[in-house]
Amino acid sequence: MELDTGTDYVLDRQREECGVFGVYNNEDDIDVARTTYYGLYSLQHRGQESAGIAVNDEGTIVFHKDMGLVNEVFNDVVINHLKGKIAIGHVRYSTTGASLSYNAQPMVVNYRVGQMALAHNGNLVNSKALRDEMESSGAIFQSTNDTEIIVNLISRTRISSKNIEKTLEKVMGKIKGSYAIVMITPRRLIGMRDPFGIRPLCIGKIGKSYLLASESCALDTIGAKFIRDVNPGEIVLIGKDGLNSIQAKVQGDSRLCIFEFVYFARPDSYIDGTSVHQARVEAGRQLYREHPVEADMVIGVPDGGLDAALGYSRESGIPYGHGLLRNRYVGRTFIQPSQDQRESGVKIKFNPMRSEISDKRVVMIDDSIVRGTTTRKIVQMFKEAGAREVHMRISSPPYKYPCHFGIDTPSTKQLVASNYSIDRISDIIGADSLGYLSLDGLLKAPSGCKSGFCTACFNERYPMVVPMEGNKMACSTR
Amino acid sequence: MELDTGTDYVLDRQREECGVFGVYNNEDDIDVARTTYYGLYSLQHRGQESAGIAVNDEGTIVFHKDMGLVNEVFNDVVINHLKGKIAIGHVRYSTTGASLSYNAQPMVVNYRVGQMALAHNGNLVNSKALRDEMESSGAIFQSTNDTEIIVNLISRTRISSKNIEKTLEKVMGKIKGSYAIVMITPRRLIGMRDPFGIRPLCIGKIGKSYLLASESCALDTIGAKFIRDVNPGEIVLIGKDGLNSIQAKVQGDSRLCIFEFVYFARPDSYIDGTSVHQARVEAGRQLYREHPVEADMVIGVPDGGLDAALGYSRESGIPYGHGLLRNRYVGRTFIQPSQDQRESGVKIKFNPMRSEISDKRVVMIDDSIVRGTTTRKIVQMFKEAGAREVHMRISSPPYKYPCHFGIDTPSTKQLVASNYSIDRISDIIGADSLGYLSLDGLLKAPSGCKSGFCTACFNERYPMVVPMEGNKMACSTR
Amino acid sequence: MELDTGTDYVLDRQREECGVFGVYNNEDDIDVARTTYYGLYSLQHRGQESAGIAVNDEGTIVFHKDMGLVNEVFNDVVINHLKGKIAIGHVRYSTTGASLSYNAQPMVVNYRVGQMALAHNGNLVNSKALRDEMESSGAIFQSTNDTEIIVNLISRTRISSKNIEKTLEKVMGKIKGSYAIVMITPRRLIGMRDPFGIRPLCIGKIGKSYLLASESCALDTIGAKFIRDVNPGEIVLIGKDGLNSIQAKVQGDSRLCIFEFVYFARPDSYIDGTSVHQARVEAGRQLYREHPVEADMVIGVPDGGLDAALGYSRESGIPYGHGLLRNRYVGRTFIQPSQDQRESGVKIKFNPMRSEISDKRVVMIDDSIVRGTTTRKIVQMFKEAGAREVHMRISSPPYKYPCHFGIDTPSTKQLVASNYSIDRISDIIGADSLGYLSLDGLLKAPSGCKSGFCTACFNERYPMVVPMEGNKMACSTR
Amino acid sequence: MELDTGTDYVLDRQREECGVFGVYNNEDDIDVARTTYYGLYSLQHRGQESAGIAVNDEGTIVFHKDMGLVNEVFNDVVINHLKGKIAIGHVRYSTTGASLSYNAQPMVVNYRVGQMALAHNGNLVNSKALRDEMESSGAIFQSTNDTEIIVNLISRTRISSKNIEKTLEKVMGKIKGSYAIVMITPRRLIGMRDPFGIRPLCIGKIGKSYLLASESCALDTIGAKFIRDVNPGEIVLIGKDGLNSIQAKVQGDSRLCIFEFVYFARPDSYIDGTSVHQARVEAGRQLYREHPVEADMVIGVPDGGLDAALGYSRESGIPYGHGLLRNRYVGRTFIQPSQDQRESGVKIKFNPMRSEISDKRVVMIDDSIVRGTTTRKIVQMFKEAGAREVHMRISSPPYKYPCHFGIDTPSTKQLVASNYSIDRISDIIGADSLGYLSLDGLLKAPSGCKSGFCTACFNERYPMVVPMEGNKMACSTR
Repeated sequence: MELDTGTDYVLDRQREECGVFGVYNNEDDIDVARTTYYGLYSLQHRGQESAGIAVNDEGTIVFHKDMGLVNEVFNDVVINHLKGKIAIGHVRYSTTGASLSYNAQPMVVNYRVGQMALAHNGNLVNSKALRDEMESSGAIFQSTNDTEIIVNLISRTRISSKNIEKTLEKVMGKIKGSYAIVMITPRRLIGMRDPFGIRPLCIGKIGKSYLLASESCALDTIGAKFIRDVNPGEIVLIGKDGLNSIQAKVQGDSRLCIFEFVYFARPDSYIDGTSVHQARVEAGRQLYREHPVEADMVIGVPDGGLDAALGYSRESGIPYGHGLLRNRYVGRTFIQPSQDQRESGVKIKFNPMRSEISDKRVVMIDDSIVRGTTTRKIVQMFKEAGAREVHMRISSPPYKYPCHFGIDTPSTKQLVASNYSIDRISDIIGADSLGYLSLDGLLKAPSGCKSGFCTACFNERYPMVVPMEGNKMACSTR
Repeated sequence: MELDTGTDYVLDRQREECGVFGVYNNEDDIDVARTTYYGLYSLQHRGQESAGIAVNDEGTIVFHKDMGLVNEVFNDVVINHLKGKIAIGHVRYSTTGASLSYNAQPMVVNYRVGQMALAHNGNLVNSKALRDEMESSGAIFQSTNDTEIIVNLISRTRISSKNIEKTLEKVMGKIKGSYAIVMITPRRLIGMRDPFGIRPLCIGKIGKSYLLASESCALDTIGAKFIRDVNPGEIVLIGKDGLNSIQAKVQGDSRLCIFEFVYFARPDSYIDGTSVHQARVEAGRQLYREHPVEADMVIGVPDGGLDAALGYSRESGIPYGHGLLRNRYVGRTFIQPSQDQRESGVKIKFNPMRSEISDKRVVMIDDSIVRGTTTRKIVQMFKEAGAREVHMRISSPPYKYPCHFGIDTPSTKQLVASNYSIDRISDIIGADSLGYLSLDGLLKAPSGCKSGFCTACFNERYPMVVPMEGNKMACSTR
Repeated sequence: MELDTGTDYVLDRQREECGVFGVYNNEDDIDVARTTYYGLYSLQHRGQESAGIAVNDEGTIVFHKDMGLVNEVFNDVVINHLKGKIAIGHVRYSTTGASLSYNAQPMVVNYRVGQMALAHNGNLVNSKALRDEMESSGAIFQSTNDTEIIVNLISRTRISSKNIEKTLEKVMGKIKGSYAIVMITPRRLIGMRDPFGIRPLCIGKIGKSYLLASESCALDTIGAKFIRDVNPGEIVLIGKDGLNSIQAKVQGDSRLCIFEFVYFARPDSYIDGTSVHQARVEAGRQLYREHPVEADMVIGVPDGGLDAALGYSRESGIPYGHGLLRNRYVGRTFIQPSQDQRESGVKIKFNPMRSEISDKRVVMIDDSIVRGTTTRKIVQMFKEAGAREVHMRISSPPYKYPCHFGIDTPSTKQLVASNYSIDRISDIIGADSLGYLSLDGLLKAPSGCKSGFCTACFNERYPMVVPMEGNKMACSTR
Repeated sequence: MELDTGTDYVLDRQREECGVFGVYNNEDDIDVARTTYYGLYSLQHRGQESAGIAVNDEGTIVFHKDMGLVNEVFNDVVINHLKGKIAIGHVRYSTTGASLSYNAQPMVVNYRVGQMALAHNGNLVNSKALRDEMESSGAIFQSTNDTEIIVNLISRTRISSKNIEKTLEKVMGKIKGSYAIVMITPRRLIGMRDPFGIRPLCIGKIGKSYLLASESCALDTIGAKFIRDVNPGEIVLIGKDGLNSIQAKVQGDSRLCIFEFVYFARPDSYIDGTSVHQARVEAGRQLYREHPVEADMVIGVPDGGLDAALGYSRESGIPYGHGLLRNRYVGRTFIQPSQDQRESGVKIKFNPMRSEISDKRVVMIDDSIVRGTTTRKIVQMFKEAGAREVHMRISSPPYKYPCHFGIDTPSTKQLVASNYSIDRISDIIGADSLGYLSLDGLLKAPSGCKSGFCTACFNERYPMVVPMEGNKMACSTR
């Protein structure tokens, strides 16, 4: 995925969402906070702004959350204070603004039947309506989080519901949008995935103990067995008696976010039955079939383009190469180069591998083009480093429409594919040719995937009506 | 006031409450955040755990709050971001526990008619009942603050009320306890004092702009004119049209906390018409009248006993002396001495002035005795430093009963006066004699004070019924 | 002492120097680092910029030093790492500049015979010459500290000396200026005071273990017995065999800095045989004898003027009062008021006690006037608060000449007494009258003091020739 | 290179050295501090413990250095304070110990002819002798750095030398070991490389301005032109008049550290004329020639084994795959898993890509094996993930002997190849086969390299006599 923005030359924020994790220790010898720590660490790619863990200690929920990476927010002292039987955790993507720490998750509250902690990944599209409705009967909101809305809704719905199961069914009927929720009640760990299954959530097991995680790589990391994905519209309740499931009636197909396969998820994860890595390799193969070219070397833009580059190479027989070095020591603060320095060719994040590409015809693979600025810069670097030709191939269709389900998209004005033809984009980025994978081609890539897909960013087919809520930004976890 | 506790040898927390401040800039050229900063700084003695400022910027409330002293929490960059026309601020007393920053004030919320920010000093005695009632209809609580209860109650009451005035009148009818509240609505600064006037709150003016403050010293600090105290049971609403007042019907006399005069308030403040310094000097004079003694020197325990020592000296003609040095460089962390070191006589906080007291008969004045441990230590230091006699005089009656209105009192088990006779206490602390000011004597000290007093900690006459709420500690601002 | 400067309205730096402390655990059960911690804490008034402790652990010296107050720089973890038998510590006064932490003391080095740690209070006047000489033979300097010069000189002199005793005697012959040094060698704790005894240093004892400290209050704090002052020109070496002393030949009288009695030292300290508190009270008495006035109240400016005010009151019979409140919650950062706010009368640091001074004729006592700005401001506050007359009395002579022995003095251009007559100063500060204590009067105050005094800041009689070293500021510990 | 150690399960320190950078702005418009910042950032892989920059501002050297990554140590405010014409910078590898910040570089000192700043990469083998000699004449040392020794030596030698050129020639005659030095004098930027050229150093140019850097990737990053490597035994002096060179007489061949090609250097760098990436690819090709195997997939251990894996794949025709995911969000603190968790298979740093390797015969390529623990763990992961066979291939010979020239090697007891035969190692790590590249094969890889190589870690042929200095650890930059 392309990286740079005008304002942030170096620390481009990859398109992030959030990651959630949960564990219920059922008579095993699991340190739930420590396990959640490693789980979140393996989901760190989904959100790098804040991290939090809440633990149910015999009915009392203790928690710690703050801005920063998982290993910055937690240390041994903190983890050792988080003792208990059930834990949930959250990593959050990056935003800007005041009093940000108030937006960190999980959210922990007292309500009528005790304490609850909740964390979620996704974005509600009817949050304003829900908020207005609850404010009309006197609710207050301390943040602009969707989380606070969901928690309030659960608390209010609980009053008139027989139990938490009924409560959550009703809540699922009210909230519209994408969500993968993990939640602690006084005695249970609960997971919940929206009826379209837009955001992923899966179930793992160690001994008799269950776990929930946004991606299966978190289960691998902590040595848990992958059991299955939570189904779209499913509520799973994990307690002393094991796992119970409630399946909401679901209208139509599931619509997993296709970008999980294109870019978000870690390649070693499996989502809804399919290997992310394999899907990307397959997309690369299909990309060659659709847009072949004669060349000497296939090079992926790290990290998003690497797997598809492998597929392109395998299908075409063109050698796979390491042609672009990425400096990984980027932290949260980084001094931006001056305009002079930019023009004089500062190459802070990427540097081409001259010896690998000199005098070669190169196929360069990336997962997507957003604004086009980074792609243009990389093509130019390659030309200056001696590449004879640079053929750009993108392992997804042109990215044209804003996401309302958890991806922080720039406005369509900034999306180069919303504004220009493919030929024109090819000119803009200075490539010798440009080819995008077709949507059909992309949809074939996650072969064996049980899920249908949300492809709205490519074809504007949103899985549900998105109310035009004035001042609401379309982004995740708010 | 006596200082030490068993667990915290050095950093004894003086008995603190909270301090509140507010300012409405009415066409004057006031930087409201900066003014609140200095206001809070002058109220720092009322709370040293956390500090916060919220500013109404054309209807949007921005805020910053964190753990620490005012000058640690705020800097120029932060203050410069807090632009607006109305500001409130809060300093909070010290507690311990997890996730403390979530208890910092002011609390800022969205509710049906916009945003509100609220900060308060005091303690509700029916908070559990209020919370239960609201939870029954679905409310959630993110903290254990009284503040969150009040804010929820305002939000819910507002639904069925014509305007904020009616809302607050109704809320005042529901909440029981002590409170001095400052509050920002979209267009106004509001102040509110409980019907007994237990906690102080006063009004100041600069040009056409009004201010609210827990103590008048905050008005002096920022160069404002003292106008008057907010009356018990009064709601003052400050807006473009100046100050409007609503006076609730009040049952019985006002009951200002007598400990504001004994210990809490800064001596340069005036509360309900009376100088705190003068009241303390007068208490000292009266203390001599009640408990005269022949001696060579009168010495006050810094800082609580200094003014009364002056009064005792003036009334008795016994010279006033500086006999006890207090080291003031105590911060929030301090390494505790080992048991060995304690026994070997480490004198970290106080050191007697040998040259002043050697071979003298000393009258030592303190404002109160709580546990007795510090007093005993000081008496012993004096004896070791050569004092021939040490006569302890306390400028308030024996402190016997817990406060439910904002003072963090130890359990009666730890209150020495709840457990022992005066003679026995004299023995315990090792003094040659001990005299407490009578309650009558104390009540005469704030001469000219318009207010009646709450003296429950001396005579158990609480101004209202205090429900026995199980796990609720009787302390302020929760 | 007067406090404000133009640029720093609030956080005026009191004139500070440095404080040193040392302890040798001789078969007693002393935690030397912890003891040094409390010792430094009681010397904190001598320096608030940085703190450091070095400990000799069986020949290896470990240390920790950083910017900040003692309780900010050290915590339990750090202190517990500083295990050993001998420790020295240092607190440093405030300066500004880059890479400041490199100036923190003690300085710890390897040299020919092992490791040494050294800390000092004072100022060399021939440091440039010494540095030039050593640089000529190849020495390098990593700081602009006098400490580094002394350490280098010791190391070089040691080469051609039989032992450390001879070495230090020679070094004492070479360095000119003021110094009170504490030092650790592989097996001993060493103290050293300049031949004029300009800076104080005293010896204490616990069991068989010896201690060194800038002021006796540090001995009180840790429960040690005061033994005696280190003599001018004396080197004391403390080891397994107890304390050994070498007395250098000294020319002429000792010349203790008179300002230790006027302002620097903590009032509960004894220096060279005399109580600081008593000396200040006596100066106040003498001040009345020299400059009597009819008045209703004597008020000291906290904290420097309080003891002298007591003396003035006792001698005159005019009642002593608490008329000026000082806000003590000032930390290292503080937001400065705007020009507008200053003019509108912001009273951040001091507030007059209206009830105490209203309609009264007040004698106000301070220890000195430096620039005159703070004094003017306080006089004005008093007038506005209703004082009928304000008679300023200063418990030392006009402060006219720069110090070259450890006090960070402003340039003579800024010293009001260097530029104006006393009458004119009285006008400038707006007082009804102004009286300075005579030098003779001041010298009589520390009655029984075994020492002569350096009074150069009053009469320009420096105890030694001060070379005009171009760019060297006359300040301590450099 | 293998990563884990027993004590540090996750945050294995890659074998690091240091990186140096320098720039002289000769009438160009270069912000030297900012340029150094980006230069250091691109050398961050050489050292992650501390970072520092010193700038010559008209003869005065200002500097900033601290523990942390480049982007943690510096921010805009700091960089903007570092104004001047000449700058040097340093990144330092990770160690542990007390008062670490005192070891950060560059070192800045005053000496006879003004100020000097110096930073270096490498390790002296005669530092103890040099230190002893200088201590004998009175020198003191504040650290255990080689840097401080070099700086002292320069200062002392300068006394008896005509100019800095002669000084440095003499110093080069005295110091034994590896070093790549950058240095600022009052008017020049100086670079110096040891006579064997063990550590790399190269020269770049922007306009008329010269730069020095440990690796050419730093020149690319800031848009500078690579000019040439500094020769072994060469001193380059860069001033107003451009670049001047002094070539010391050199005995025998150059001996560049072969591990720069095996592991240290960034693959996009060129060292002594050869592309690091190409050398690694070539080593991989040769590795196949020496140790062919039938397999389905070649997989490199990130990041050290990736380039050689590419070579192995290209030479063998076996497909290249992405089979091992490396989590890159590792910071300076990370909570270690419990023993239980380790045994239950926590995979914090690496996770195999099941879909890629399942049921496959895998050739796994790494750059070296040190202890063997990580390799064993990875092989086991692969087997558990379904790999049918795992053939380990190492792109360098068995690593058997400690380095004394800058690599922090574990003791030979911990080096698996020092203790076991290759067959035995294969068993220990659980591989189906194991092959190491021969030394001859490795030496052929950097084809066209002008340099000879130090291969002592493989064959114990140290380029010079290494004195057995008792307590001196053989590691870099001390």
